[in-house]
Amino acid sequence: MGSKYKDDTLRIFSLNANKPLAEKIAKVVGTELGESTVRQFSDGEIQINIEESIRGDHVYLIQATNAPVNDHLMELLIMIDALKRASAKTINVILPYYGYARQDRTAKPREPITAKLVANMLVEAGATRLLTLDLHTVQVQGFFDIPVDNLFTMPLFAQHYQDQKLTGENIVVVSPKNSGVQRARSLSEYLDASLAIVDQEEVDGVRSGYVIGEVKGKTCILVDDIINTGETLTVAAEILAENGAAEVYACGSHGLLSSGGKERIDASPIKQLCITDSVVVTEDRRPDCLAIVSCAPLMGEALKRIHENTPMSPLFHLKKK
Amino acid sequence: MGSKYKDDTLRIFSLNANKPLAEKIAKVVGTELGESTVRQFSDGEIQINIEESIRGDHVYLIQATNAPVNDHLMELLIMIDALKRASAKTINVILPYYGYARQDRTAKPREPITAKLVANMLVEAGATRLLTLDLHTVQVQGFFDIPVDNLFTMPLFAQHYQDQKLTGENIVVVSPKNSGVQRARSLSEYLDASLAIVDQEEVDGVRSGYVIGEVKGKTCILVDDIINTGETLTVAAEILAENGAAEVYACGSHGLLSSGGKERIDASPIKQLCITDSVVVTEDRRPDCLAIVSCAPLMGEALKRIHENTPMSPLFHLKKK
Amino acid sequence: MGSKYKDDTLRIFSLNANKPLAEKIAKVVGTELGESTVRQFSDGEIQINIEESIRGDHVYLIQATNAPVNDHLMELLIMIDALKRASAKTINVILPYYGYARQDRTAKPREPITAKLVANMLVEAGATRLLTLDLHTVQVQGFFDIPVDNLFTMPLFAQHYQDQKLTGENIVVVSPKNSGVQRARSLSEYLDASLAIVDQEEVDGVRSGYVIGEVKGKTCILVDDIINTGETLTVAAEILAENGAAEVYACGSHGLLSSGGKERIDASPIKQLCITDSVVVTEDRRPDCLAIVSCAPLMGEALKRIHENTPMSPLFHLKKK
Amino acid sequence: MGSKYKDDTLRIFSLNANKPLAEKIAKVVGTELGESTVRQFSDGEIQINIEESIRGDHVYLIQATNAPVNDHLMELLIMIDALKRASAKTINVILPYYGYARQDRTAKPREPITAKLVANMLVEAGATRLLTLDLHTVQVQGFFDIPVDNLFTMPLFAQHYQDQKLTGENIVVVSPKNSGVQRARSLSEYLDASLAIVDQEEVDGVRSGYVIGEVKGKTCILVDDIINTGETLTVAAEILAENGAAEVYACGSHGLLSSGGKERIDASPIKQLCITDSVVVTEDRRPDCLAIVSCAPLMGEALKRIHENTPMSPLFHLKKK
Amino acid sequence: MGSKYKDDTLRIFSLNANKPLAEKIAKVVGTELGESTVRQFSDGEIQINIEESIRGDHVYLIQATNAPVNDHLMELLIMIDALKRASAKTINVILPYYGYARQDRTAKPREPITAKLVANMLVEAGATRLLTLDLHTVQVQGFFDIPVDNLFTMPLFAQHYQDQKLTGENIVVVSPKNSGVQRARSLSEYLDASLAIVDQEEVDGVRSGYVIGEVKGKTCILVDDIINTGETLTVAAEILAENGAAEVYACGSHGLLSSGGKERIDASPIKQLCITDSVVVTEDRRPDCLAIVSCAPLMGEALKRIHENTPMSPLFHLKKK
Amino acid sequence: MGSKYKDDTLRIFSLNANKPLAEKIAKVVGTELGESTVRQFSDGEIQINIEESIRGDHVYLIQATNAPVNDHLMELLIMIDALKRASAKTINVILPYYGYARQDRTAKPREPITAKLVANMLVEAGATRLLTLDLHTVQVQGFFDIPVDNLFTMPLFAQHYQDQKLTGENIVVVSPKNSGVQRARSLSEYLDASLAIVDQEEVDGVRSGYVIGEVKGKTCILVDDIINTGETLTVAAEILAENGAAEVYACGSHGLLSSGGKERIDASPIKQLCITDSVVVTEDRRPDCLAIVSCAPLMGEALKRIHENTPMSPLFHLKKK
Repeated sequence: MGSKYKDDTLRIFSLNANKPLAEKIAKVVGTELGESTVRQFSDGEIQINIEESIRGDHVYLIQATNAPVNDHLMELLIMIDALKRASAKTINVILPYYGYARQDRTAKPREPITAKLVANMLVEAGATRLLTLDLHTVQVQGFFDIPVDNLFTMPLFAQHYQDQKLTGENIVVVSPKNSGVQRARSLSEYLDASLAIVDQEEVDGVRSGYVIGEVKGKTCILVDDIINTGETLTVAAEILAENGAAEVYACGSHGLLSSGGKERIDASPIKQLCITDSVVVTEDRRPDCLAIVSCAPLMGEALKRIHENTPMSPLFHLKKK
Repeated sequence: MGSKYKDDTLRIFSLNANKPLAEKIAKVVGTELGESTVRQFSDGEIQINIEESIRGDHVYLIQATNAPVNDHLMELLIMIDALKRASAKTINVILPYYGYARQDRTAKPREPITAKLVANMLVEAGATRLLTLDLHTVQVQGFFDIPVDNLFTMPLFAQHYQDQKLTGENIVVVSPKNSGVQRARSLSEYLDASLAIVDQEEVDGVRSGYVIGEVKGKTCILVDDIINTGETLTVAAEILAENGAAEVYACGSHGLLSSGGKERIDASPIKQLCITDSVVVTEDRRPDCLAIVSCAPLMGEALKRIHENTPMSPLFHLKKK
Repeated sequence: MGSKYKDDTLRIFSLNANKPLAEKIAKVVGTELGESTVRQFSDGEIQINIEESIRGDHVYLIQATNAPVNDHLMELLIMIDALKRASAKTINVILPYYGYARQDRTAKPREPITAKLVANMLVEAGATRLLTLDLHTVQVQGFFDIPVDNLFTMPLFAQHYQDQKLTGENIVVVSPKNSGVQRARSLSEYLDASLAIVDQEEVDGVRSGYVIGEVKGKTCILVDDIINTGETLTVAAEILAENGAAEVYACGSHGLLSSGGKERIDASPIKQLCITDSVVVTEDRRPDCLAIVSCAPLMGEALKRIHENTPMSPLFHLKKK
Repeated sequence: MGSKYKDDTLRIFSLNANKPLAEKIAKVVGTELGESTVRQFSDGEIQINIEESIRGDHVYLIQATNAPVNDHLMELLIMIDALKRASAKTINVILPYYGYARQDRTAKPREPITAKLVANMLVEAGATRLLTLDLHTVQVQGFFDIPVDNLFTMPLFAQHYQDQKLTGENIVVVSPKNSGVQRARSLSEYLDASLAIVDQEEVDGVRSGYVIGEVKGKTCILVDDIINTGETLTVAAEILAENGAAEVYACGSHGLLSSGGKERIDASPIKQLCITDSVVVTEDRRPDCLAIVSCAPLMGEALKRIHENTPMSPLFHLKKK
Repeated sequence: MGSKYKDDTLRIFSLNANKPLAEKIAKVVGTELGESTVRQFSDGEIQINIEESIRGDHVYLIQATNAPVNDHLMELLIMIDALKRASAKTINVILPYYGYARQDRTAKPREPITAKLVANMLVEAGATRLLTLDLHTVQVQGFFDIPVDNLFTMPLFAQHYQDQKLTGENIVVVSPKNSGVQRARSLSEYLDASLAIVDQEEVDGVRSGYVIGEVKGKTCILVDDIINTGETLTVAAEILAENGAAEVYACGSHGLLSSGGKERIDASPIKQLCITDSVVVTEDRRPDCLAIVSCAPLMGEALKRIHENTPMSPLFHLKKK
Repeated sequence: MGSKYKDDTLRIFSLNANKPLAEKIAKVVGTELGESTVRQFSDGEIQINIEESIRGDHVYLIQATNAPVNDHLMELLIMIDALKRASAKTINVILPYYGYARQDRTAKPREPITAKLVANMLVEAGATRLLTLDLHTVQVQGFFDIPVDNLFTMPLFAQHYQDQKLTGENIVVVSPKNSGVQRARSLSEYLDASLAIVDQEEVDGVRSGYVIGEVKGKTCILVDDIINTGETLTVAAEILAENGAAEVYACGSHGLLSSGGKERIDASPIKQLCITDSVVVTEDRRPDCLAIVSCAPLMGEALKRIHENTPMSPLFHLKKK
């Protein structure tokens, strides 16, 4: 690498969930990933060893906690424990994807609040700061009393659609469900577009829904944060099509694309699905219409600003050209 | 009182914010409020003395933290400290209104998360359990690691409108802003009604907005949680009227009705505003069209279930007749 | 079931790791397992719902954290979180097998102490007490500040060998490695047997070793706590055979028996391998010579003593006949 | 300003209670106050925004918690929360006046210890250090486990009276009540004066008292820490006059001077009342005989010593000329 | 013993500092001390074993932390740890004498606040409640966030002097130093007596002092809390004699009476020294004029009230006859 | 001193337990011990004053907690409290000997885990890091969540015996009891020696034992960690002699050598006893055959590496020549 980052106390480590993203982030910062070994014994237990001294260093630890979520989460917690005992000065956890984030309230009696449990585990293990990307609900920041910087992906998607000239009054940004309207609202502002909602419900396993707002003859952009089975998006896309939408685009911050996601999207009216690289999507799970924008420049810049104590606020908005 | 509650270790105390509600709750439970003295010295400091021994008792402490919010909150914290040192067995805080609940995230850089600060203060002071009513965002439950039971008001409002025959396809439940759609969704289900949103924005102090969904010729019911200046509701009501709504009703869980609220609502197309008695509204601040449904039966029943270790779940839904 | 346990506040729940053992324990106590649902979403996240009210109850939660250890551990932590928020009075975690127990010190620089991390997670989630079975090192009790009762398996194995008349001077109890000598010492006392050690080492993946003590012509009983790949035991058995041992028996508290374990043991001089049912061993992983003694009577009795506040000490020794 | 303070990581912020003092302190240090916005909504809730990045900085936050004490205290706690989440390196709270300091014990059964509650709130919110001025009782330092530097005002008053030549055997320093004798003792040593006590009691709202010690023909200086209604001082002054005191001076560290304080003092034999500027006294509440000595040089110097890690001890004594 | 206390979950244990007092307290309660073994190894380490099951019990643990203070304190902490791990339901520490209580503030720069350290140690070890006797400063209560009941000894001494007819205008209660005036004030009220102070100072090891108030021809009663070397009392007694006092009595809550205390008091004008039995005074350290009033009835009654959840307040005042 | 250490923020303080070692360590580092005063009052209470400002400094505090263990431990805790309140930046506790380390588990029911209690006390008082020497069991590291570096003494003893040419096949390293085999194993590897165990038991105060392994005609080196009364070693030595050992050497990390230790060893077959200087052994307690190797170079080097954030790992192995 040409230019090395100048401060030796900045150390970036990555665990197993998303090494390609971690390497990109390290490159943005101007350094290389530190060396650590993560092994799984025959009984399934994870063993971690940090291969370089990090005494007194500021460690930035990158891990997405997507599937296998429990393994990725335990990897993260064990590594934090190791860093703490090995005398890291600060332990800055970088979570491009925060697993269990949707379990953020007791939706039914006697349910856990697993997103809070995860928060408590991270802090108890020794994390001193968090950097996240588009948390499912922003209130999860308040689950922590350590500093949390939550980066937004809407500026990335806004840039993506602006580059495709998808702006102005012919565009409707659509929330595919009655929650998450703010995210759609934010993108619609960037694109000078109007706003609609597909209100879905599921009765006995059958999803149905209707459109609130005007979509006829318009180019629709569906916006969600987590795309798992793809069902919410594809059902919404079909309803939009039925209601006369001219074209349907879709985007989502975190492309989990599990079981049948690719097939569902390939078979849907969605013309293009745009996600970030917050989690790794293997080739076989990628829909044909997939576009990926990288969050590495954003996260790398944020990491630098954390380390250099410069303000994060410029990163919360689309850069003017 | 006719029938006394049978367990001497159940003790209900009220502070100054909403004694009428506290008395109603005590009556529902079948007991009387305990005696305590709250004085304010000439220098503004609050002094509290509990006038009866509560050693080993389960204390239920009722306080709404509406305006003057800081005084009400400090009253609450000081009383919790006193109860803890006086050997209460459990300290169950009953918050019909949770002040600062809207500051539940860092909306802009370098903002506090005051709703979490309040949570931390309550727990640090010694609260062992919380009972709340329609929290602004349900994720605030996750700000706590002690048990929190959050009661819903939508069943109360559903009952209120069912009693007025405001159900069925002529009714549209409307969220007056793009957040809080779930609350409207919930009421619409109870009333077999459709759903719409007024998407408002404020530019240079001037609010404007438009309707997403169909309201023409319909009876609209606006739903919000906290009604403070009334501006969100009245602006939405006017937009609904402009869009051809036949009639406009409105409801909100917590009627703060501060500065000019009454005047704004009196001058608006709102035909009836329905709130609960979670906070005290003095006569001079009551709009002419005000209806109040009491949350005391709901909260009193919940308090009994907490004390008797019976499930809370039946209270989360409208009682079938 | 004939006789129901008389106290309704005692509630036993089991998660997925070892339901057969949990059912046996419940039977010993005289009650049935409570109902809860554990689902895994398509993205791998676990969702738990407790299907019965447990307000104010003393909950005993049974889970072994063997493979898949991270899933089993997260199930446990999430359930504890749910119980805490659902107002369980006490949360007593029963761990027949404590995953990660061997990572109880930093063997090399910059290693974690994962057994302590697990302890911290359990307590932070809300566990109020622990019941374990033959912890890898007893010092792990001190990783907790909540009460921990650690039951011993040596009396169970002693009973097993006494029933087979394997006692007296013809018997040598052998530790298959230089650590864990205390366990062998304890069994040798019960059996009036002598003591030996196989001191093994592994150089470049090749294990070798030698015997310290007298084994020629004797019946040897190898004793270990965790039997994973079986390699430690089978190498020791071969060395014993080479040194003239007449017969070789082996026992271990926790039969993980992962990858190739069955094959290794089937091919070794071990005549009989005795384990407890602390973890489930599927049919295909069971060596031909396997004998299983149940720890359910011991753990069920301990559970009852915890609940009834009677002393645990009688359980630490073999019952006299 | 001429000379800027040389270290950019030192940042001083002031909240609303005593901005004039904060500005003086900043000037002593050689810097300016940072910018922050504190707004109060129509429902009484406080909203704070820090207008400059303080990432990695050492923040010194100045706030007196005199009346309205609950508003001032909540301002302080909310600002600490904001600083913590905005990644301040250290949060040093500077409290020229510590509200609720007199509630430092349970004087009667079932009273709170509000001074401890305040301590716990400050630490829980995120304060990492405290600088106070003449705490009502020095034991309040022990309510904290973070470092607390408590500055004394007696050297300031000693200087004030030395400048007026009020020293030597004609002077008696008098404690106006039977507690707080140490403060009088300390001033008497600085002034080479003798010591006396006015032992007051209040029966059915009527105060009476008598002098312990010799005051006849002497110039008396009454010493207290908090002057609220002024009643303790003025009753003591009258008793001194009745006992033949030649002249009566009075001083107190914190001049709250609430309700009727000015009138009481104007009507009393007190010739001059000296206070510090630890709290703001509006013109209409100032007695005619009021003298104010500034604590800003002392507190500013202490702030610098904290920041530069130089010893605080030289500040605890009167400078020799 | 005749009448057994009726609740089996009340268990009283005593450590080594003051077993005679503990036995008296147990008798007052109507039960016997539990059995525990405290051994000191040859290397000075203390080993404790509780000889009876205390699972689920409310344990009251009596220990004075006078000299050898560090041994007594460690005994106490170790026993608390043992009780916690052995599943005591509550651990109520009864401290007739609180060692290190005088180190309750940083009198000089860079001093510890050892009384707070002791408080933190007790709570960290597992104490859930404290019962103390005449704390050196009442603010030490605020060093704890668990309930602390601090009993007063002045009613005991008042009774003692009333029995001797030492009441009325011929009596002066005298504080032997300028701190601790409140204690003298309290006794003077009980005895309808007047109040005086001996203001002492020590310069280069030589103590001197003078009387503030009238003592000539009066019977003086000196009051202190901790009597260690006896020097404060005896110097004060001599000054009182020099100032014409008719007789000098003295009392103090805690009679440590270390090195030379007996000799000093025997040689002084003190006619009678009255202490409680909060600490053991061996025969050889008892002054000839010693009178001891037992605190056991007071502490035993308090213990019962804690256990039975009846109010403590009646114990804070002298019983009317 | 010739070369001063270059960083003024490194400050080493010693308490009373082992000042000679502390001075050697300071010399290794290249600095001098800081000044502090430790006094014991006539009532046994310890008073500490730090005589130099340590604001913002990294303090290394050296104290062995051997007998009188409780006094040494309280000294340590009080000093930590003082350092914390005096604004030390980090408090690094250096414990050449960790008192109570053997009480690391509940060996019998209702025993404390005093080693964990000590750990909790150190952390609660304010220790931020620990440096220890040959902990009795390495699992005690996991009693802490702050970084702990545990240095090994086996390389020191290996060097000692290599210098005496005691290596190779004629040497047997012997563990004098069935626990602690790892320590012997480690030394045997350094010396290319074989391994044996003396399995001792004590029945009714009489110790007996037998040898596991071959010792006839060999030179035996007994290895233990803590040598207190010397009984374990001397009984083992006699058994070795009886079994035909040619010569018996012995070594132990911590030479407490209490009551009769010297006499026992002098009368035993032990030819040379080697210990470190981790605790002070007064002349009268030194066996005639005593050899002392200093741990100061090791601990001083470790201290420097902690301060300079360089890796500790090179210190865990014998230096190659």
